[in-house]
Formats: sequence, structure tokens, C-alpha cells
Amino acid sequence: MKKGLFITVEGGDGSGKSTQLANMKEYMASRGIEAVFTREPGGTGIGEQIREIILSTGNLAMCDMTEVLLYAAARAQLVREVIRPQLAAGKTIVCDRYLDSSLAYQGWGRGLGRETVEAINRFAVEDVIPDLTVFLDIAPQEARNRMAKRGEGPDRLESAGNAFHDRVYEGYLAILRAEEEQGRSRIVRLDATRDAETVKQDLFAVLDRRFASWA
Amino acid sequence: MKKGLFITVEGGDGSGKSTQLANMKEYMASRGIEAVFTREPGGTGIGEQIREIILSTGNLAMCDMTEVLLYAAARAQLVREVIRPQLAAGKTIVCDRYLDSSLAYQGWGRGLGRETVEAINRFAVEDVIPDLTVFLDIAPQEARNRMAKRGEGPDRLESAGNAFHDRVYEGYLAILRAEEEQGRSRIVRLDATRDAETVKQDLFAVLDRRFASWA
Repeated sequence: MKKGLFITVEGGDGSGKSTQLANMKEYMASRGIEAVFTREPGGTGIGEQIREIILSTGNLAMCDMTEVLLYAAARAQLVREVIRPQLAAGKTIVCDRYLDSSLAYQGWGRGLGRETVEAINRFAVEDVIPDLTVFLDIAPQEARNRMAKRGEGPDRLESAGNAFHDRVYEGYLAILRAEEEQGRSRIVRLDATRDAETVKQDLFAVLDRRFASWA
Repeated sequence: MKKGLFITVEGGDGSGKSTQLANMKEYMASRGIEAVFTREPGGTGIGEQIREIILSTGNLAMCDMTEVLLYAAARAQLVREVIRPQLAAGKTIVCDRYLDSSLAYQGWGRGLGRETVEAINRFAVEDVIPDLTVFLDIAPQEARNRMAKRGEGPDRLESAGNAFHDRVYEGYLAILRAEEEQGRSRIVRLDATRDAETVKQDLFAVLDRRFASWA
């Protein structure tokens, strides 16, 4: 039995990730694809406990290295408890954030560097790398305007400041560029400044192509 | 100003670690040494939250790699929030368990190997290595007999089984041997099968020597 497709969705805060994840769910249901939706940090009982520590606004004393290791711990659990066994059982996995988030947020955002974050996460992910990563591309300033309009309150990471989110965005672009330079098509960039319905049409087209070549 | 002395106390469950830590406190008070006592996992607000996840008997699904990363996360926080700044301020630090515990419990006990556990922890500890490690040496079978007499209930790690604790003990001995082979005197082994008062006298003698050469 062929192993399932591993899809991750990435993007800064306010990139419309939740909306497109809902669209992804609609897609899987309409095509009759057995998909497991999960999220990072979290996705397991233990991972959700780690998530609470990471996102708590009471934990402002958290050091950057602690943060990287906590994300990696939650990821290690998710990979072994959910992603790897479900893929092996032929299920498609859709994960809201994954390794690229750690690279962008901690490697670039926190300034720890890609190498350090990758070295730690190698132990968490081992060979479990996404087959497709949908990157919802929107510049941080525009995303901030969107979030302000929605009146959303920030968690510990969202409240890290504009300069932080600018670096995260640079990180995403650098990761995308590095993948492209190596001739890999894992990451597909969708222009997320457009209206949600247009992004959805693009998303469905991307998924149609990937599942066609996967089947 | 000379930086403080960094002391760790190591040993399997039932090795009398709590008793000797209390003796250590008595020693510091009697000598007028400003010492900060801390513990692993934990020792910080964030570390204690991580400790709850690690030790909870509800978290039996925890994968070995998750465990290693969680210990490293708590350690990263402790090093940066407590150990490094307090040492820099000239204080002596006494830590109940540290890096050697991860090597013995996860490297040997869980079978992940010393290299993997060390590679992850390098990011947590950086250059913060103990000046003195007191290893309370007692074979697991004898320690088990002691604990049974005290009627203590096990946490998730203590309940990991006899074979696990036998491997942990092998790990401690291997770490001690490796240090000695490299001509280092960081780890001092105390025979913890003797009565607590005799161990205490040895402990005080060890501390006297170290502080004499440190001052």
C-alpha cells in the first residue's frame, strides 16, 4: 500500500491560514480522500500540554533556545504518534505548521540561525518531510492590517513585535528560495493578498495536480 | 570577581540523593557559602511546567525523543535564567540532577545513545558544565529494596521497570569511566550503600577539598 501524502500549511499570522485549512478540509471531503488534520504545536495530548506552555502569555521569561526545544519536543511526539503511523496506513496528513515554522520563527525571527534550528529538529522529524507545503504569502504589514480589522488579541508569539514578524517573513522567503534553487517543488507559494475565494481556487488546483501525480 | 562553583548531584532513584542534598545545604550554611539550590527538571517557572508534563503518570504515550527534548528545554531555561547568571554573580550552584541524568536515563536507559542525547543537549547547556559532580553510587537492586522499605510510590520514570534502571546505572558507570579515562576529576563517586552519616562525612571532605582549591 502506497503511503499517504504529507501536506503542511505555512504562513505568518494573518495570512488566512485558518480559512485555507477549512478549504483544504472541504477539498478532501469532496474528493473522498481520507485525511487527518492536525496542528503544531500540539496535535497530541502531550503536544497540546507543550503548546500551552509555549503560547502562555505568562511565560514571557522563556528563552529562545527553550522555545526551539519545546517546539521540537511537541513535533517529535506528533511525528511518532500521528504523522508517521497515519501516513504508513495510507492516510493523507494535513498539518497546520511544521518544520518550516520553526526555521522561520526561531531561526530567523529569534535570530538563532537556520543551522541550529535544523540540527535540533533533525532528531524530531528524522525522515518525515512534507511532500507538499502550501505557503500563504502576505507581507507582514498587510497581515497586521487584516488582523487589526478582525480585532484579534495576540498570544505570546503574535505579540513579539513587528520587527520579529518581518524577520519571520524574510525567513519564509529564504526557505522558499533555497528549495527552488535546489530544484525542489515541495513548497508552493500562493499569493495570499488576494481574496480568499481566489486563493481557494488556486489551492484546489495545486491539490488536484499533486494528487493526480501521487495516485 | 571569580565565578561561583557549579556542583551537581547525580544518582539513581533510591540512592539517598535527597538526604545528601540536605547535607549539602547544611555544609554551605556552616561555611557561610552563598549557594543557590535548584533541581532538574524544573528550577524555573517554565521548567516546573515542563517537569509536570515529563513526570505525569497520565503521559505514558510519551516517546523517548520527546522526553529528551523536554528535559533539554527545561535545562536550557535553567541554564539561562538561573545557573549562568548566578555563577557570574559569584554564587555557588547546587543542582539536583543535570546533564549526566539525561545521558544515563535517556542515552542508556531509553537506549537512544550517548551521541544523540549529547548532540541535543549541547544547545541547552552550551559551555555551562559542572565543576564538580557528586555521584551517589548504589546498585539498582539495593536501591529498590530501600525504596520498597520507605513505601514510596513511583512517578512515570520511576515506574519504568527494573531493566530500565539497570541500564541507567550502567550509563552512570560508563560516564564515570569515560571521565576518568580522560584524566578529568569532575565526577566524584561516593559509595551510597553505606549509612547516610558516613556518606555525609565523605561528602563534606570532598567539598572541603574543592572549595580549598577553588578559593
